[in-house]
Parts: sequence; structure tokens; C-alpha cells
Amino acid sequence: MSKVFVNIGLSLDGYMAPEGMTMSDPGYKGWGAKWGAMMGWLLRQQYFRENLLKMGPGGETGPVNDLVRSTAERIGANIMGKRMFDQGEVAWPEEAPFHTRVYVLTHEKREPWVRPGGTTFHFVNDGPERALELARAAAGGRDVRIAGGADVIQQYLNLGAVDELEIALAPVLFGGGRRLFENLRDPGPQFRIDRVLEGPGATHLRYVRQ
Amino acid sequence: MSKVFVNIGLSLDGYMAPEGMTMSDPGYKGWGAKWGAMMGWLLRQQYFRENLLKMGPGGETGPVNDLVRSTAERIGANIMGKRMFDQGEVAWPEEAPFHTRVYVLTHEKREPWVRPGGTTFHFVNDGPERALELARAAAGGRDVRIAGGADVIQQYLNLGAVDELEIALAPVLFGGGRRLFENLRDPGPQFRIDRVLEGPGATHLRYVRQ
Repeated sequence: MSKVFVNIGLSLDGYMAPEGMTMSDPGYKGWGAKWGAMMGWLLRQQYFRENLLKMGPGGETGPVNDLVRSTAERIGANIMGKRMFDQGEVAWPEEAPFHTRVYVLTHEKREPWVRPGGTTFHFVNDGPERALELARAAAGGRDVRIAGGADVIQQYLNLGAVDELEIALAPVLFGGGRRLFENLRDPGPQFRIDRVLEGPGATHLRYVRQ
Repeated sequence: MSKVFVNIGLSLDGYMAPEGMTMSDPGYKGWGAKWGAMMGWLLRQQYFRENLLKMGPGGETGPVNDLVRSTAERIGANIMGKRMFDQGEVAWPEEAPFHTRVYVLTHEKREPWVRPGGTTFHFVNDGPERALELARAAAGGRDVRIAGGADVIQQYLNLGAVDELEIALAPVLFGGGRRLFENLRDPGPQFRIDRVLEGPGATHLRYVRQ
């Protein structure tokens, strides 16, 4: 069966996004520079540049690039929250960078939104468990990625539905923003260390549920 | 000159201590089990068992054990907060596990407290910068460890005084407790990844200030 996984960048102080992050103003509270410092490692990878940024040839190759490719290739469907969708709706290129069905958790009723390149956004009004059912069915043999934001990842952690937690921990301190680990039930899910990959810009930690 | 470093265990969700941690009741909110899950890797190391727990021979050897030994041997003086001292005062054995001078940040005036085995606690009423001066002078050629708790580490991070940040990140979720990274100034100090050592029970991350 499809695995359910999270794969995100995280600041050393535990934030997925710096305070004030809003697509309409990259200078606000310096969030653009902070986010860039956290995710710079990704923006330099060949696979990401060629296939997702569509910047043409170039970029770093090696184990981190291989990891980015294998992560992208395993995703059969995505799930995201409404806030993440709203920010992306204005920021993504016309060919949105998912190339799968994307299930958006929302109270808003809306027809599916088909983008060129294989991404279709489906708006789910029946909660995270229903979105996961739909995503599993759509994923075929591949895996379901909980794309974010933090609140959506927390919901799936609290449902005990996250099989694998992949974190690219960057050596930056945001000092504020949206924390990944908050609002978790106690006791929460139990993970073990599965793999650590060292990169110069981030440490790629992979945890598997016990 | 002496380096100033932090070396702590941290839960994956960013806590140095689980909620309810109080020496008088290890069962309270299950804090004892949580703390044990976070620090179990350390309690298994030969150096820690023989030299700090005084449990006699035995325990794991290898790179993690070597790391524990080299960390212990580089410490010329410790700094800690009053809360950490208060908890330790009732919990440490008579031979307190520091074997250096320990500078305790407090408003309380108190004469130095000499313990067998080379640990002397000095109570500093003049703030963290004065405690650091005293600790540097006492450390000789060795380094100064900011032992904790979280609030004291935050104070030294905010002073820009932490040269090295060593974190043993354990794959456990506490769901609440005392966060390491809170109340940080923005912009905060900048670190780079210096070393990653994989262990089965924790990932040993070392960051150096840029």
C-alpha cells in the first residue's frame, strides 16, 4: 500500500516558514532571505532546477540531488492545506510543480482546477481522513505526500497516519514563524531514525514510524 | 581562547525537557520515560557509565562513546541556571557530575558550595556576561560549557556568545515541555553545519558560529 510521508525543509529552531511569509511581499520582515537560506540547498540541485524550476541544464549532482529525484518520483498524490494552496495559487507557475492530483483540505466548495503538466487540484470538504482515502486511491502504487502547511502535517501526525517523516534541517535560526511541531497529541506517534544524509546546506533526516 | 559551547539532548520536536519534569516525581506526566527515551543513548555509553554514573565497567564503545569522552574532557568550566541547579541539588550524587567550577546564574547570594570530586558551585548575581568572564578565567585552556537550562542557553545565544552548538537529536516527540529555541533575537547568530555523527539513538549535530 502507498506510504504516507512528509518531506519538508525546517529551520534549526523548528520553523517551516519564517514569520511574515506572504507571497505578496518578499521583503516583509526579511522572510524571503530567511526562506532562501533554509531552502538554498534545494534550489541548487540539478533535478529541481531542470524539472521543477524549468531553468534548463545545470546545478549540483550527487547524493542530495539523487534524493530530490527519488522523492519527486515516489509521489503519486499530494495533500495540502488551504493556506498553502492560497499562497501557491498566486505564486506557482501555470504548470504547477506537482504533476499529480493534489487534495486541498478546505471548507470551500470548488470544482477541480486542472493545470497543464498533470497537476489537478481537488477541493476536499470532508476532512483529512477522506482526503487521505482519495489520495491513496489516486496514487496508484506510488506514495502520498503530505505537502503542508504545518497545521495539516500536525493533523496527520495526530491521526497516526504519517509513515515517514523526512526533514531537511538547515542551520538557520528564524526566531519566529510557523512551527512544525506544535499541537501534537501526547503520546504522539513513535519514530526511529532510518537514514541521515549529510549535505553542506542541510542535514537530511529520515524517520520511520515504529 | 576558550570556546563557549552548548551540548545537549533534544527531542525531535525541539524540547530539552518534557512537560512536568521535576525530580521529586519521575512518574508525573510520564516525564521520566520521555527523558529516558531522549537520553538513553547517553546512558548506554561506556565513558558515561564508568566516569559519570560510576557504574563500573561496561557499556557501548565506538564513535558515540568517543564523542562523549572528548566532550567531557574539553570542559574547563560550566555555567547553568538556577532552576537547573535547584533540580540537580536534590538529584546529583554527592560527587556532582561536573568536576569543574560551575557558575550558577541566580539572584540568590550564597557562598561557594564545594563538592567532593572537583566540583565547586559559584553563585553569580551579576548576570550572564560576568558569569562567562569568570568561567573563561577558570577554564584555563579548556572550554566553557553552557549546561542549561533552555533559558540560559537562550540568553547566551542572544548575547552572540555561543561558538558551538552541539545537539543530540533524538527521534522522540514530547508534545510539550521546555523548548530550546525560543525568545531568540532576530536576526540571531548564524551557524554552519560542522559535523554530523549518526548514532542509533540520536543524531549528533554540531554547528559552528560563522
